[in-house]
Amino acid sequence: MVSRRNFLRAAVSLAAAGACGGLVRPARASALPLRLSWYPYELKLRHLFGVAGNSRTTTQGVQVRLEYEGITGYGEASMPPYLGESAASVQEFLSRVDLSPFRDPFEMEAILDYVDRIAENNAAAKASIDIALHDLVGKLIGQPWYRIWGYSAEKTPATFYTIGIDTPEKVTEKTKEAPAFPILKVKLGRSPKEDKEMVTAIRSVTGRAIAVDANQGWPEKTLALDMIEWLAEEGCVLVEQPMSKHRPDDIAWITARSPLPIMADESLQRLWDIPVLSGVFSGINIKLMKCTGMREAKKMITAARTLGMKVMIGCMTETSCAISAAAHLSPAADWADLDGNLLIANDPFDGAGVSETGKLLLPDRPGIGAVPKPDAPGEHAVG
Amino acid sequence: MVSRRNFLRAAVSLAAAGACGGLVRPARASALPLRLSWYPYELKLRHLFGVAGNSRTTTQGVQVRLEYEGITGYGEASMPPYLGESAASVQEFLSRVDLSPFRDPFEMEAILDYVDRIAENNAAAKASIDIALHDLVGKLIGQPWYRIWGYSAEKTPATFYTIGIDTPEKVTEKTKEAPAFPILKVKLGRSPKEDKEMVTAIRSVTGRAIAVDANQGWPEKTLALDMIEWLAEEGCVLVEQPMSKHRPDDIAWITARSPLPIMADESLQRLWDIPVLSGVFSGINIKLMKCTGMREAKKMITAARTLGMKVMIGCMTETSCAISAAAHLSPAADWADLDGNLLIANDPFDGAGVSETGKLLLPDRPGIGAVPKPDAPGEHAVG
Repeated sequence: MVSRRNFLRAAVSLAAAGACGGLVRPARASALPLRLSWYPYELKLRHLFGVAGNSRTTTQGVQVRLEYEGITGYGEASMPPYLGESAASVQEFLSRVDLSPFRDPFEMEAILDYVDRIAENNAAAKASIDIALHDLVGKLIGQPWYRIWGYSAEKTPATFYTIGIDTPEKVTEKTKEAPAFPILKVKLGRSPKEDKEMVTAIRSVTGRAIAVDANQGWPEKTLALDMIEWLAEEGCVLVEQPMSKHRPDDIAWITARSPLPIMADESLQRLWDIPVLSGVFSGINIKLMKCTGMREAKKMITAARTLGMKVMIGCMTETSCAISAAAHLSPAADWADLDGNLLIANDPFDGAGVSETGKLLLPDRPGIGAVPKPDAPGEHAVG
Repeated sequence: MVSRRNFLRAAVSLAAAGACGGLVRPARASALPLRLSWYPYELKLRHLFGVAGNSRTTTQGVQVRLEYEGITGYGEASMPPYLGESAASVQEFLSRVDLSPFRDPFEMEAILDYVDRIAENNAAAKASIDIALHDLVGKLIGQPWYRIWGYSAEKTPATFYTIGIDTPEKVTEKTKEAPAFPILKVKLGRSPKEDKEMVTAIRSVTGRAIAVDANQGWPEKTLALDMIEWLAEEGCVLVEQPMSKHRPDDIAWITARSPLPIMADESLQRLWDIPVLSGVFSGINIKLMKCTGMREAKKMITAARTLGMKVMIGCMTETSCAISAAAHLSPAADWADLDGNLLIANDPFDGAGVSETGKLLLPDRPGIGAVPKPDAPGEHAVG
C-alpha cells in the first residue's frame, strides 16, 4: 500500500518535472478519467438515538469511492430521515454525476461547482463526492488535509460526548458511563420541567461543562431566555438553536440578551446563509452533510470568522470516513461535536480518533486518513 | 534541481509513510529550523510612473528567502512610498521575526498568526514572509498553489495593462504601443476636463475596454457619478475608489446609482474591512502587499464572494516573485490587474507570464513557481 502510493506520487512528480519551467496553456494533456462508484451501507446505532420528536436504531448511509490512476478516495453520505435524503435519493443523484469531462482531480473548484449544479439540495450526496475527491487529491499530494490547509494538529478541540434524551435515572446512568470528555452534550427542547430534569440528572454525577442543543424546541423567546439563564448557572457553555428557524427575530432577541453563545444549526445550511445569520446567532454549527462537504465548510469557517462569529463543527451519525473528513477542519473551530462514529456499532473505517479526554486526534495519513477495515464490505461496489 | 526536489519529496513521503496508521499526538518530532534571510532590491521602472499626486522612477523592494531542509521559498516586499513602509522598516520588521519555535513549515496558520502579531501594520513585510512560506510549502508538497487550492489554470483572467497619466499626445502614443490586452487601465481622478481628455485620447486609437482607477481623486459625489455615467458610455468596465476612503457614505450613494461596478482600493486593507465595505462598494481590489499575503488574500476572496461582492486581484510595482504569488489566486477573481512586473526593467525572477492577449499563464512549477534568473543578485543574502 505504502510503496504503491509512493510509486504513484513519484509518477505524479515526474509529470510535474516534465512541465518544469513551463507555463500552463489552455490545452491540457488527457489522463485516465475519474471513476465514481458507491454502495448503500446502513449504520447500526449502539443505543436508541433520541432527539426532540423522533428516535431510531439505524441511519441510512451510502459509501462512495472515487478512483483515479489506481488511487481510491473514500467518501460518505449520511442521511438522517428528517433531512429529506435517503439511500435511494443519494444513489439516484450519484448516477447522474458524469465526471468524464474532467481530466484532473485537482480542479476541485470546477468539479464541485459542476456537482452542485446538477440539482438543488442533495447536500449529503454532494458531500460524499466532495469527501472522496478531497481524499483522492490529498493522496495525490501525499499529505493529510489539515496540513495542506496549514492547521496544527495540536489545536484540535475535544469533541462533545452526547447524552441522549431519556428518563432521569437512565441519564444519570449514561453520564456515569460516559468517557472523560470535558463537555457533555444534551439534546433539550422539551418542557422546562423535563429539560431541567435532564440537566439536574447530569449534575447529580458530574460538574463537567454541558453543551445544549435545543433542536428548535422552545416555543417562546422569554421562556427560552429563562432556560438559557438557568443553564448558564448550571455550567452550560453554549446553546444550539433555541427556537424554530422560522423565528429569526425571536432568536436575535435571545442572542442579544443571552449569557451563553447561541449557535445556528437548523437555521443554517450553506455558505450563503451566514451573512443573514450574523445578526441573529453568535455562531454556527457546520455539518458536512448539510453544507455539501469539506470545501464549502472551509469557506464557511472563513466567512463566519470574518463576521466575528463562533464556529463549531458538527456531524450526523456517520462512519469514521465522514468524521475524519470533518476532523481535519476542527483545528479552526471553537468546538467540535464529532462523536457520530462513536455511536455506531458497525464502523467500516479506521480514521480520526479521540484521546481519553476527548481531544480529536487527526490521522497523519494523506487525504482524509480514513482506511477501510480489513472486513469492511467494500468489494461489492456498484455504479 | 528536479532530481533533488524529487529526492526531497520522497524523503517527506517516507516520513509520512512512517506515520502511516498513526494519529498525531501533541509531542512532535523536532526538525531543522526555518531560516529567514533577505536583501533590499530597488525596482527600476521602465517608464515614469504617475498617479494622481506623485510620480517616481524607482520602487523600494526587499527580497526574502525562507530555507528549510535545503529547499528555498522566495518572497518579496514591495513598498510604494505612500503606504508607509520602506526597505528600512521591512528589514527592521524581518529582524524581529523568530521562527525558531516552529518546527513544521506546514503550520502556516500558526506561523503567519505569529508574524501578524509581532507588530501592527507592516503589511508588505508580513506578505514577504507569507509568500516565501507558501513557496516553500508548495515545494514541499510538490504542487503549484493554484492546484493545491483546486483552481483551474484555464480560468485565469487577462491582466489589465496600465496607461500612465500623461499629455493626450503621449497617452495616444502609449495606447498605440500597448500590447493587445483586452482591458486597458487608466488612472484618473484629476479634473473632469483632464480625465475626459485621457479617455478621449485612448478612444482615438482603440475601442478596447477601459478600467478606471480614480485613486480617491473626485471631490464630490454628484461630480463622481456624472463622470462614471460618462465613462460607462465610453466603454469602461469598472471604477476603483471614486472618492476618499474617509467618505464611505458618499461612495455608497455612488455605488447605489452607478452603472459600473465600484471597487474598493484605498478603503480596503484586510479581511476585517470587508463586512464594513459590503454595503459601500460593489467589490474589492485585493493586493498582497496591503493584506499581508496569499493566505489572507484567499480568505478575502471567500469573504467577498459570501457577501456577493466582485473580486479583483491587484498589485504594486513588484517583481515576478510577488506577481506570481498573486497570479495563483487569479482564477477565482473577476479581474486581474497584475502588470506590475511588466513595468520594471530589472525583474530578477521568471514566473507567471501573459499570453499575447494578456491572459495570465500560471507557472506549473511547485510553490509560487517563481525562479531566480541566472544573473539575479541572490548571492549576497544577509540577515
